[in-house]
Amino acid sequence: MSVTVVGSIAFDAVKTPFGEREKMLGGSAVHFSLAASFFDDVLVVGPVGDDFGPDEYEVLEGRGIETADIERVPGGRTFFWKGEYGWDLNDRETLDTQLNVFADFEPKLSAASRASDVLFLANIQPDLQREVRAQWGGTGFVALDSMNLWIETARDSLIETIGGVDCLMLNDAELRQLTREPNLVLAARQVREWGPSVVVAKRGEYGAAMITDEGFFGLPAFPLETVVDPTGAGDSFAGGFVGYVAAHPNDERDHALLSRAMAYGTALASYNVEEFGVERVARLTSDELADRVAELQRITRFDEQPIVLRH
Amino acid sequence: MSVTVVGSIAFDAVKTPFGEREKMLGGSAVHFSLAASFFDDVLVVGPVGDDFGPDEYEVLEGRGIETADIERVPGGRTFFWKGEYGWDLNDRETLDTQLNVFADFEPKLSAASRASDVLFLANIQPDLQREVRAQWGGTGFVALDSMNLWIETARDSLIETIGGVDCLMLNDAELRQLTREPNLVLAARQVREWGPSVVVAKRGEYGAAMITDEGFFGLPAFPLETVVDPTGAGDSFAGGFVGYVAAHPNDERDHALLSRAMAYGTALASYNVEEFGVERVARLTSDELADRVAELQRITRFDEQPIVLRH
Repeated sequence: MSVTVVGSIAFDAVKTPFGEREKMLGGSAVHFSLAASFFDDVLVVGPVGDDFGPDEYEVLEGRGIETADIERVPGGRTFFWKGEYGWDLNDRETLDTQLNVFADFEPKLSAASRASDVLFLANIQPDLQREVRAQWGGTGFVALDSMNLWIETARDSLIETIGGVDCLMLNDAELRQLTREPNLVLAARQVREWGPSVVVAKRGEYGAAMITDEGFFGLPAFPLETVVDPTGAGDSFAGGFVGYVAAHPNDERDHALLSRAMAYGTALASYNVEEFGVERVARLTSDELADRVAELQRITRFDEQPIVLRH
Repeated sequence: MSVTVVGSIAFDAVKTPFGEREKMLGGSAVHFSLAASFFDDVLVVGPVGDDFGPDEYEVLEGRGIETADIERVPGGRTFFWKGEYGWDLNDRETLDTQLNVFADFEPKLSAASRASDVLFLANIQPDLQREVRAQWGGTGFVALDSMNLWIETARDSLIETIGGVDCLMLNDAELRQLTREPNLVLAARQVREWGPSVVVAKRGEYGAAMITDEGFFGLPAFPLETVVDPTGAGDSFAGGFVGYVAAHPNDERDHALLSRAMAYGTALASYNVEEFGVERVARLTSDELADRVAELQRITRFDEQPIVLRH
């Protein structure tokens, strides 16, 4: 099986209290692909410019990711984002956004990308996401991410797009904003009425929560002493989650399997933020990943020991 | 064994999008006591005025709570708090605070209160907490709560007080403010250098996290469709947590037991917010409590199913 991801491929400039990088590989499709590559074949679709060179391809291909659907725009420049994080890493300021080749991106899926079993629609304009969904020929699992910009400027289109996917993954603040419902359980119910059977709320340092036909599942984030750069954490989570799903046949994709997928997503997000950009995940080993999932299980499990209550 | 709690006994006026109450029983010591009463004998210490009558005593005594150390101040009025919650229940505005008898509160522990095995210092001025700690004769588990007011106005005293307890329980924003460290793991390390071996960060709708000598434990909050009144959730959590600890001998109070205590705290907090004030917990049954803890375990557990990773 395989998973196709359509989204941004970028250069990021990031400054945090722990250091800075002036130009590093980033973008939602990149973070997603690297995380998902631990589980399944990944095909990445997105535009780049002339400045996207062999070193960048090598990061992806070194993890076995199929790059044939990366569209290289002659004379163009790759999407660029510059941001700075404060001492509290929840405070992020965007200093510069240059859409460049991303401004005119018209996704074209190759036969191979169309034939994948699983599709991840990373955060791009919802009309484009719907266009990708229409091109894609698969019948397996489709997950979608979005952001506050589209909720504010293209809410109706986004809701229509959400209607065509199996799983919506959003930050919990965006989920509230989209549904206009502050309660997570009710917000998820609203989304499920629009179409998706699975709703995942990404909660940053607080972890993630999921609601399916079978109910709720929640996990805290993996505790870290050092968070160097939060950029791409959500996409790494999505790559771990969706990649794990893609590695299993459709009839096994029940609540229990999706709960395990949440654990892999959580583990990959935690590695992602330990260093700048993709630096940590690009050299992550499968043993390290398995160790962190096991540790995550240990630190969230409490024994069943029925107590005789006094009253 | 038994647990003594020293804190506020109050009347609250609360308005939320789901309704309002003009005068209902509240206060940190009350919410704590009701929650802890499921596990162990509870002795409650705090001041009340003439307006605190048989109905209020009955709520406590109906759950077997020892009220002999409630100090009734003749001619005085009970502590009064009035607040309103917005549609997003994280937004809370205090409309009125009347300290009344609480302004001159000088805690005096009776022989019975001094002889308890476990002590909970609910949120009061840190000098008073230290005074209570000095009066108390026990050698068991001592836990302490505080708030932003004391961090801002009496930080040195608070840190000295924290140095004399086993467990600090704070909202995570207060933990950051107190330690001046945004990272939870590092904030907990700082607190543990001051004295306590156990640090619990209450995270509201995101649950709670704990750090002990044996490491980290985290739980999401129990998911609820309807949160009617968040007042007292933190104290109900503390009552469940500390009450569970109190019901077990000192040599069993290890990380695994404290993790189970976190689950009982989480369950009690979730019941507390389902209705106004103490209304839900006051009529809660032990079967309902056990059911919710079992459900909490189910919705936070993922199976061990090692996957053969692709790379």
